[in-house]
Amino acid sequence: MSRIDVVVPLAWSEARFALRLLDQRRLPLEETWIDCATVDEVACAIRDMVVRGAPAIGITAAFGMVLAARQAEREGAGAREHLRAARDKLAATRPTAVNLFWALQRMGELAEAGACADELLAEAKRLHAEDIEGNRKMGLWGAARIEDGMGVLTHCNAGALATGGIGTAIGVIATAHAQGKRIHVYVDETRPRLQGARLTAWELSRLGIPATLICDNMAASLMARGRIQLCVTGADRIAANGDAANKIGTYGVAIAAHHHQVPFHIAAPHSTFDLAIPDGSHIPIEERDPTEVTDWAGQSTCPVGMAVFNPSFDVTPASLIRSIFTDRGEIAPVQTQNVLEVLGHT
Amino acid sequence: MSRIDVVVPLAWSEARFALRLLDQRRLPLEETWIDCATVDEVACAIRDMVVRGAPAIGITAAFGMVLAARQAEREGAGAREHLRAARDKLAATRPTAVNLFWALQRMGELAEAGACADELLAEAKRLHAEDIEGNRKMGLWGAARIEDGMGVLTHCNAGALATGGIGTAIGVIATAHAQGKRIHVYVDETRPRLQGARLTAWELSRLGIPATLICDNMAASLMARGRIQLCVTGADRIAANGDAANKIGTYGVAIAAHHHQVPFHIAAPHSTFDLAIPDGSHIPIEERDPTEVTDWAGQSTCPVGMAVFNPSFDVTPASLIRSIFTDRGEIAPVQTQNVLEVLGHT
Repeated sequence: MSRIDVVVPLAWSEARFALRLLDQRRLPLEETWIDCATVDEVACAIRDMVVRGAPAIGITAAFGMVLAARQAEREGAGAREHLRAARDKLAATRPTAVNLFWALQRMGELAEAGACADELLAEAKRLHAEDIEGNRKMGLWGAARIEDGMGVLTHCNAGALATGGIGTAIGVIATAHAQGKRIHVYVDETRPRLQGARLTAWELSRLGIPATLICDNMAASLMARGRIQLCVTGADRIAANGDAANKIGTYGVAIAAHHHQVPFHIAAPHSTFDLAIPDGSHIPIEERDPTEVTDWAGQSTCPVGMAVFNPSFDVTPASLIRSIFTDRGEIAPVQTQNVLEVLGHT
Repeated sequence: MSRIDVVVPLAWSEARFALRLLDQRRLPLEETWIDCATVDEVACAIRDMVVRGAPAIGITAAFGMVLAARQAEREGAGAREHLRAARDKLAATRPTAVNLFWALQRMGELAEAGACADELLAEAKRLHAEDIEGNRKMGLWGAARIEDGMGVLTHCNAGALATGGIGTAIGVIATAHAQGKRIHVYVDETRPRLQGARLTAWELSRLGIPATLICDNMAASLMARGRIQLCVTGADRIAANGDAANKIGTYGVAIAAHHHQVPFHIAAPHSTFDLAIPDGSHIPIEERDPTEVTDWAGQSTCPVGMAVFNPSFDVTPASLIRSIFTDRGEIAPVQTQNVLEVLGHT
C-alpha cells in the first residue's frame, strides 16, 4: 500500500499559542490560513464555516477550549466559569454535528476536574491524534468493500479537510486507491455550498485519484447507466439505530442507490454517534441563510423576496445504509444492537 | 376560474418579418428581446438556449422555416433545396426534444408540397395557436389531480416560457390555482442552468402562486417531512411506452417520489411523443459544455482540468410515472396501449 499524502485543514501553532485554520470558504481558488487566538475567533470560524466537517469541527472546538483556558489564566479569571461560558459559546455554533458536543464534553470534564491550559492542550492534541489513527483504521475497514474497477460516488466533502487525518469517506476511497485498486470517483458538487466541487474535487486531484464532477441531480442517471457500484459518504450525527444525518442531498443519493441496488455506505468515527437518541427523528437539523441558495457571485438567481428552504442536513434511515465503517469496525447490518456492539457499548 | 396572465417567450413581428425571442439566459435580471430575421439566427438562438423548453423550441423552429422560405424567395434560390438545408440546420441544434423534429416535419412537408413563405407563416401561426389551446386543455386535465392544500414539486421550467401558452407543468399548477385551490409550489433550482430558480420562480411570482425555492438535493428531504403531495414536470421526448426524457434530475425526483408514495406526473402535448421509438433507451441524450457545471460567474468552482459529466436530460421510466397529462387527455396507467389510445393512434 502506497502512502496517502493529505492536506491538513488545521494546525496548532506552539509559537503563537493559536489554532491555524485553512479557510475552506476560499478553496480551491486560494489557500489562506486564519489564526485563531481566542475562543471567540474559534466560535466564529466554526459558525462561518472557515472549518467544516463533523470531526474537524470537534477538534477545532477542543483547541477552542484550550484558548479559553489560557485566556482565563492570563486574566486571572475563574477558570471553571470561564470555561463553562466558552463551552456554551462553542456549543451554540452549529447544532447538527455531534462531534462538536462530544469534544466539548471531553474537554469540559477535564476542565471541571481543574485541568490547566497545558493539560487541556495535551488532551486536544490527543483527541486530534486519535482522529488521525481512527481515520486510518476506518479507511481499511471501508476499503475492504471497494473492488478493483468500481465507480464510487461520494457527496459533500468527507475528506482530510473535514477531519484530522485522511478523512472518513475519502479516507476509505484513498485507502482503496493506495492499495492499488483502480477506481473512478463521481463527485456530487453538493449545493448550495459546493463542498464537492470545491473541496472533494480538489482533494482527489491532489491525491491523483481519477474523478468526475457532476451536479447532484445527475447521480441517479449515472446509476441507471451502471457507472456507480458503491456510494460512500461521511456523517454529522448517527443515532443509536444507525439513522445518519449528513449533508443535505445524502438522503436522495441513498434512495437512488437503493432503487438501483447499489450499496450505500457511511464512514464515521465513534465520536459521530449519539447513542443518547434512539433514532434520526431526534437529530436537530440546522437551517442556514437563504442567500446560500440564491446568491450567485453577488447576484440573485431568483426574483427578489423569493421564499427559500435551506436545511443543511438530512437524515438517511438505517434501512437504506448497507453498512457503517467506523474506527472500531464495520456495522452491518445497521441496527441498534450492532451499533452498540461494534462501538463497544455492550 | 380566474384568468391566467402569462409571460410570452416568443412573438412574430409582422412589421419586421422576424421572430422576437425573450432572451431567457438573462432572466430574471433583465428582460431583453432578440430579433431573429434569418434561419441562422434562429438556429443559433435555439442552440445557445435564448429559447428553451421542448414546445417553445418546436414553435421557434417552425418560424425559422418561414424565415428560410422568405430568404429563398428574396434571393430567387431553389426554395425546396434551401428549405431542406434550413431544416437540417435547425434539426442539428439540439438532439433530445422531439417537438423540434415534429415541427420541422410538419413545416417540411408543406415546403415539399411547394408552399410559399406566407403559407408557411400561416402554418407556423397555426402550430403556435394549437400549442396555446393544447396547454389550456392539458392544464384542466392536470388540475383535476391537484387538491386544495397540496404541496406540489416541479423541476426545471415547464411554464409559459417553455411553450406557446400557459405552460405544461406550470400550466397545470396555474390552472389549479386559478380554480381557487390553495397550493404551495416547491421549485427545484435545477442545476446546472438554474431554470427553476431563474425562470419558474419568476413565473410563479408573476402569477402570484405561493412558492419556495430549494436546491435539487432537498426534494427528498421535503417529501420525508410530508410537505409534498404531488410532483409534476414537463418532458422533452416521450417514447411509445411512456418512458419520458426531461431535464436532468427529473429521474431522481421520480425515484424519491416513488419511495415516498408521492404521485409523480408528467405534462406534455402530443407533439412531445415519439411513437417511432418503443422505449426510452432510444432517446438521444444531449451532453452540454462542462463549463455549465464549473463556471460560477466567470470563476471555476473546481480545480482546473477536472473531468465533468454534464448530460442535459435523463429518462424516467413509465413505471415511475403515475400519469401523463396531454392536450388529448390523461394517460393512466402509463403503458403503450393507453398512450396510443389517448393520442388517437388506435
